[in-house]
Amino acid sequence: MSTTIDSLADSQRRIEVPLRSALDRLDPHTRHCCGYHLGLWDPDGVPTGSMGKGIRPTLALLSARAAGAGDEIGVPAALACELIHNFSLLHDDVMDHDTERRHRTTAWAQFGIPAAILAGDALCSLASELLAEAPSSTAIWALRCVGASTRRLIAGQAADLDFETREDVSLVECLKMADDKTGALMACSASLGAVLADAPAELALGLADFGTHLGMAFQLSDDILGIWGNPERTGKPVLSDLRSRKKSVPVVYALQSDTDAGTRLKSLYFRPGELSETELSEAAELVETAGGREWTEQRADRELQEALAAIEALTIPAPIAHEFIALAYQLNHRDH
Amino acid sequence: MSTTIDSLADSQRRIEVPLRSALDRLDPHTRHCCGYHLGLWDPDGVPTGSMGKGIRPTLALLSARAAGAGDEIGVPAALACELIHNFSLLHDDVMDHDTERRHRTTAWAQFGIPAAILAGDALCSLASELLAEAPSSTAIWALRCVGASTRRLIAGQAADLDFETREDVSLVECLKMADDKTGALMACSASLGAVLADAPAELALGLADFGTHLGMAFQLSDDILGIWGNPERTGKPVLSDLRSRKKSVPVVYALQSDTDAGTRLKSLYFRPGELSETELSEAAELVETAGGREWTEQRADRELQEALAAIEALTIPAPIAHEFIALAYQLNHRDH
Repeated sequence: MSTTIDSLADSQRRIEVPLRSALDRLDPHTRHCCGYHLGLWDPDGVPTGSMGKGIRPTLALLSARAAGAGDEIGVPAALACELIHNFSLLHDDVMDHDTERRHRTTAWAQFGIPAAILAGDALCSLASELLAEAPSSTAIWALRCVGASTRRLIAGQAADLDFETREDVSLVECLKMADDKTGALMACSASLGAVLADAPAELALGLADFGTHLGMAFQLSDDILGIWGNPERTGKPVLSDLRSRKKSVPVVYALQSDTDAGTRLKSLYFRPGELSETELSEAAELVETAGGREWTEQRADRELQEALAAIEALTIPAPIAHEFIALAYQLNHRDH
Repeated sequence: MSTTIDSLADSQRRIEVPLRSALDRLDPHTRHCCGYHLGLWDPDGVPTGSMGKGIRPTLALLSARAAGAGDEIGVPAALACELIHNFSLLHDDVMDHDTERRHRTTAWAQFGIPAAILAGDALCSLASELLAEAPSSTAIWALRCVGASTRRLIAGQAADLDFETREDVSLVECLKMADDKTGALMACSASLGAVLADAPAELALGLADFGTHLGMAFQLSDDILGIWGNPERTGKPVLSDLRSRKKSVPVVYALQSDTDAGTRLKSLYFRPGELSETELSEAAELVETAGGREWTEQRADRELQEALAAIEALTIPAPIAHEFIALAYQLNHRDH
């Protein structure tokens, strides 16, 4: 849907200049690492055009517009969400030892762990600073929303790390982790512009509800792609989530399924040593046979439907509702 | 001076319960790592009594009282400063590979790097959250102060890391680094209670000025102790800063001194391989002969005098001025 692609591109245009100004507040080393991570330049500082999709800032800008506010409110909200998201990516890549993101070397792999830790710290702190400078009487509420979401991001990552060493992760725990790791900041992004615009609580809460379901749908689709996605499109190696023995939703569903396929998957997944290519393909088949793929796809669909219902329940201008809906569809039929 | 020791102990009493409540907002893994780092419990969760001195929260509580405000304002300011300080310690220990702090194993060495990164992130975010909840019409200004100080903390740590690989660090750069790494948060701590109490700008700025000089005096004394301190009292090995080839102020002064001792120090300091005990003692003597110790001690004295003058220039109740002054003396004649 061209409308949505436009709204992503449009939000990127609106936030790029203020994002660059925000980075200019940082010391040169930290600024350089942040700008590299954000895709503004390559390791030598040569400009590149490889910024992220900007889903969260787009949601935040839309949520300000939904509350009748302009960019003076939407942009600080959008920047705060984008900075918090990237702070978490910078630190997650260190913790997860990931060396590639968006087809580029990760910041820690390029500049070292200390630089990447400081860059993440700087983006986290800048997010609060920018919100505290917004021309709004409700900045303090926006800051509380961001604080609560950040705590949940951290809880989600802590759970994800904890799962690595456990064989008994339940589906409930796994869904809670996804909700914390992805849902919380999506809910914040989809409502922060409205909060900062002093919108009625009903509107802010409705938008947050949309974001929660959208985040969950998005994460579940991502879990599907992590096993069955086309590597050329996802930028990750084939069967990557199985290779790293990730406890994603389809896998946990299968492990807990009490089926023959689930039992066989358990013995494969929890044995020491790397899995061969044949074993990886077998594991993917076992997840599917045990019902993990179907359950996850259905749940993702349900979350998407609930997201759409949340938007439809709101009294907001039709063109803005349309953009939220188009964005939701786009994110859930993406193949990268 | 017993007054000061009382004021440190008193501030610890006032912040401990709200600090514990703040940690209770976190997921169990992150909470456990934060509480361990803060000295509330040992690795198994058994209560311990080894919290830090609490200089920053004491300053923040005093600054609220200086502006005529009570604990409802002083405590959130104190907690924010203590949390930001500990966020930076948690991450610095990871970056610097330090395995011991306050005679205990550092958090990353105990729980792993991911847990320590998340714990630091959580404390940084909690600091903003608590300030945003303070019953104050100027919380937004307090948040801006904390944001700006955090940026300078990060800049100081980035410079410190950069210095490790450079042989040409100037004294000006070195003093700037100390000001960013220690002065900025001390200035923030000494004024944040007043900012949050909506004090006149003159008072807030005067207190920040006090904190800046106090922080610098404190850091310079620390640099002296890092070379000539008594290991039993400092908790660090003898000559520790020389052993790790730290570019502290006395060392940089000596290296840049254009003296025979400075030249000899350079060839020792910049040669590959570990320094022997004899070489370490020689290096300490060379720093002293080149004038590094005397210059640093005199500069620390001057900073302390400027801190005291900043307090004396303010119109604040005499008992509070007395507490600030007593604290300043105590911090600068400490031998650990």
